[in-house]
Amino acid sequence: MDFPFNRIKGGVGAPQGFLTSAVSCGIKTPGSSRLDLALIYSEKPCSSAGTFTTNRVKAAPVRVSQAHLRKGDLRAIIANSGNANACTGVQGIHDANAMCDAVAKPLKLNRSQIGVASTGVIGLPMPAMRMEPKYDELLERLGPKNGSDVAAAIITSDTHAKEVAISFEIGEHRVRLGGCVKGAGMISPSMATMLCFITTDANLSSDNLRKAVLECVEDSFNRITIDGDMSTNDTVMVLANGASGMPVARRNSAACKQFREALRWLMLELAKAVVRDGERVTKFVTVKVEGARTYLDAKKVAEAVCKSALVKSSWNGGDPNWGRIIHAVGYSRARIREELVDIHIGGKAACIGGLQASTPMDELRDAVAHPEFEIVINLNQGDADYVMYSSDLSPEYIDFNRSEYAYWKQARKDGLV
Amino acid sequence: MDFPFNRIKGGVGAPQGFLTSAVSCGIKTPGSSRLDLALIYSEKPCSSAGTFTTNRVKAAPVRVSQAHLRKGDLRAIIANSGNANACTGVQGIHDANAMCDAVAKPLKLNRSQIGVASTGVIGLPMPAMRMEPKYDELLERLGPKNGSDVAAAIITSDTHAKEVAISFEIGEHRVRLGGCVKGAGMISPSMATMLCFITTDANLSSDNLRKAVLECVEDSFNRITIDGDMSTNDTVMVLANGASGMPVARRNSAACKQFREALRWLMLELAKAVVRDGERVTKFVTVKVEGARTYLDAKKVAEAVCKSALVKSSWNGGDPNWGRIIHAVGYSRARIREELVDIHIGGKAACIGGLQASTPMDELRDAVAHPEFEIVINLNQGDADYVMYSSDLSPEYIDFNRSEYAYWKQARKDGLV
Repeated sequence: MDFPFNRIKGGVGAPQGFLTSAVSCGIKTPGSSRLDLALIYSEKPCSSAGTFTTNRVKAAPVRVSQAHLRKGDLRAIIANSGNANACTGVQGIHDANAMCDAVAKPLKLNRSQIGVASTGVIGLPMPAMRMEPKYDELLERLGPKNGSDVAAAIITSDTHAKEVAISFEIGEHRVRLGGCVKGAGMISPSMATMLCFITTDANLSSDNLRKAVLECVEDSFNRITIDGDMSTNDTVMVLANGASGMPVARRNSAACKQFREALRWLMLELAKAVVRDGERVTKFVTVKVEGARTYLDAKKVAEAVCKSALVKSSWNGGDPNWGRIIHAVGYSRARIREELVDIHIGGKAACIGGLQASTPMDELRDAVAHPEFEIVINLNQGDADYVMYSSDLSPEYIDFNRSEYAYWKQARKDGLV
Repeated sequence: MDFPFNRIKGGVGAPQGFLTSAVSCGIKTPGSSRLDLALIYSEKPCSSAGTFTTNRVKAAPVRVSQAHLRKGDLRAIIANSGNANACTGVQGIHDANAMCDAVAKPLKLNRSQIGVASTGVIGLPMPAMRMEPKYDELLERLGPKNGSDVAAAIITSDTHAKEVAISFEIGEHRVRLGGCVKGAGMISPSMATMLCFITTDANLSSDNLRKAVLECVEDSFNRITIDGDMSTNDTVMVLANGASGMPVARRNSAACKQFREALRWLMLELAKAVVRDGERVTKFVTVKVEGARTYLDAKKVAEAVCKSALVKSSWNGGDPNWGRIIHAVGYSRARIREELVDIHIGGKAACIGGLQASTPMDELRDAVAHPEFEIVINLNQGDADYVMYSSDLSPEYIDFNRSEYAYWKQARKDGLV
């Protein structure tokens, strides 16, 4: 398919009729000026949809947003970074509701029209005393911007803000779609990214939007893995306000399909950006499994390879180690036959029929020396395939994740624990 | 239970009637004097049993030993380190058979009475030209030793040889049980250790021995994890030659139960030794899950916690991070309720009812500062429990596993690939 979209500047502020704002409360680091509280607001009523972590331990904002999304009429999203508001019990629900209430009245919305999201350390109460003095400023700053303030405010251990926006034609109307994402750690299939917000001025019913979101998340965020850990806070929320002027897209209409293709492309773009900016990641690896008996078998193989600590270590070392790849294929619980497995690394045959191929090792080594390469695993047993996007695992990742103790010490100082 | 066994010196050579031998072929490192080919031989006929990797990619020696074990009359085991003879196709089967043949005739045994095992790099053909000149020496050296030569010859990235032997009374007879193990990397549930050999002069039928082995492996090697990767070569083989003079133990007899308890203790001791000597491991962590609805739920929770890269990173950092533990509990797919979960670290309450407990953080931090500590996760939903033994994940582990390229270069020099 040709690329039928134009990239435009910004993210969630790029579509018409959306205002954004972000302030610094010092949730990430007291006294610092890093943005950590963000607001997205649509001037017009919206259709809305979302998907959330399948972790049974769900953060308070996830529970609150899931309840609010039931009617599908969100018009604003408030989000903070630095504290996940997870494992915080009744107080956590209270704090998430307070975030909604703080902006609902001034924006003349019901509490249930606000989506709420948090990301950061698990288990610490929200520092409400740092947020309350900042709500006025958050509302005052609300204005037509491109959304980069929101993208910057939601990141934690990410090295940079991640946002994408595109415009495309639906019939005679120019439609815009923009999104931002934060990721970095705790990235695994079944809702990968920690937080992703998407806005559009397309015109869809909430039902149609929900179907499109579920389908596109399956093809994007559910196909990435960095460390195999699934977060308590994973959230994707999408608002569509119809400000482009297009008539409402009917189910299965050409307009609906065009929108879905654009959403799929945008989500995949954001998902890949999460992997590329994974915690201390040095390699972006596309793993394609082909020739599986079933879709599920292909998926099992891709997940086992993408999650193996040994495989990821060898990617980090620039070692074209097909032996470790096939050993992960073997324990994936998919139906495979060792003697049929072919593995190509960067287009070069590494393993044919379960055995070392004749490709000179230096050529394979060159292939994995690139910061981005592709591994194709053909099981030669059927027609099903699956693709995943993964990264290496670096010594620096572990170093980086050795301790969150500093956050706890701060919380103790604040009298929160 | 009181400890009813006496520790004795040595390992697989400690029971009566077993001879051992080991030589250096230069499989691990050409020209080096490190032992890398070992032989265990019983002077009397044996009952035998074994369990093997459930990886669908199985090394040639695993396939050969599985076939040989069908009759349950193994009398010798030959094993090498440095090359796994995995993903080596028909040539691999030929090479594994050749190892058996090399000792079968001189020992006046059938090929099918020899167990064979290999550990090391995957995907490279066996360097038969280095092993053939050494078989005579291997047989000449065979003699009554305590088995430490075998323990030393099977290790690869292990920092030291690991063996245990005990003696205990069955009726009027003193019975001996000895074993050695190599582990280090690729350690995960469903057959953990790479190689474990156990000998005993107890007297059991192969059927009874097989049942005891399956049950005891489930309670020991299947409960450890270091990096979550399952090997292609995992092998446990047990030989029982009856040389203690005890009459054959009948099924469900007291003698049979006594033997099983001893075997369980020995296997758990060896399994724990594998974790403690895991690649670049600094912490030995016992994870107890209690109050689960079912055994399977308890197991799922233990496995999720023990395999989480983020949890393991925090252990490495000495961070008593219960937030990461509960997030792994949440994605384990077990039936849990966040608000019921209690987590104790080193006997101190870290999380009660899904919330931060009142224990001062410094006390929790002291608990995880120990090289060995225990984590108890109570789901408060039922009576089922499960225990696992795990380790931290260190930056050094990844550094260590970045590349096996040197092995491949050597194989190229040898004309093997």
